[in-house]
Amino acid sequence: MRCWNVYSESCPTRLVLNRIADKWTVLIVGALSQGTKRFGELRREIGGISQKMLTQTLRRMERDGLVNRKIYPTIPPKVEYSLTGLGCSLTEILEEIRVWSENHIETILAAQHEYDSAVE
Amino acid sequence: MRCWNVYSESCPTRLVLNRIADKWTVLIVGALSQGTKRFGELRREIGGISQKMLTQTLRRMERDGLVNRKIYPTIPPKVEYSLTGLGCSLTEILEEIRVWSENHIETILAAQHEYDSAVE
Repeated sequence: MRCWNVYSESCPTRLVLNRIADKWTVLIVGALSQGTKRFGELRREIGGISQKMLTQTLRRMERDGLVNRKIYPTIPPKVEYSLTGLGCSLTEILEEIRVWSENHIETILAAQHEYDSAVE
Repeated sequence: MRCWNVYSESCPTRLVLNRIADKWTVLIVGALSQGTKRFGELRREIGGISQKMLTQTLRRMERDGLVNRKIYPTIPPKVEYSLTGLGCSLTEILEEIRVWSENHIETILAAQHEYDSAVE
C-alpha cells in the first residue's frame, strides 16, 4: 500500500485537499445532502455563486466522483444533481465546518476588531 | 441572538468559511496542532508553500484569533506560532478532512480516470 502524505506538494492527496477545502464545494455538498437538485435550484440556494463557477465546480465534483449528473430526455432536457456514496461520506465533515463557522463567528469578529485596533 | 446563515453571500460566516475552507489553513492548523513552531519550521514542513503565502496566511489566522504570535527579544528576534483555544477547536474537524483526503484518494483517482475516458 502506498503511503499518502498531504504535506508533500507532489502527493495527489494535496490535489484532493485543494478541492475539498473550497467554500463552493462545502456549500454544494451541504445543499445536495438534502436531496437531488437541479442546476437552477442550486444557483438560487447558494448566494453569490456565478453560473460559471457553479458549472465548473459541479463538473469537477462529477469528475472526482462526488456528484452524479442525471439527464432526462425531455424538451428542454432536465438535468439533476445528487451526491454519490463518496460525496455522502463528506457530508458530515463539511457540515461540521459550516456549523463551526456559524458558532464561532462572533469570537472571530471580536478577534479581528481587537487585532485591527492594536495595529492602528 | 442574530441568526447566521452561511448560504447568504452577505453573512459574515461566509467570510469565515472562505478562510477555513482553504488548503493552507488546513495544513497550518495540522502542523501547529503538534505544538509551537517557528516560521522556518512551518515553511519546511508544508511542501510548496511560498514565504509570502505563509506570511499572509499566518497574519490572517492571527487576525481571526486562530493563531498566537510570540516574539522573543533576542538578536535576531525569535518568533513562535501556536494555536489559540479557538484554533485548537478547529483541529479535529480539519484533521478529518486531511484523513478523508488520504483515505479516498484512490477512489477519486479511479473516478477521474473513468470520467476522462468517457469524455474522450
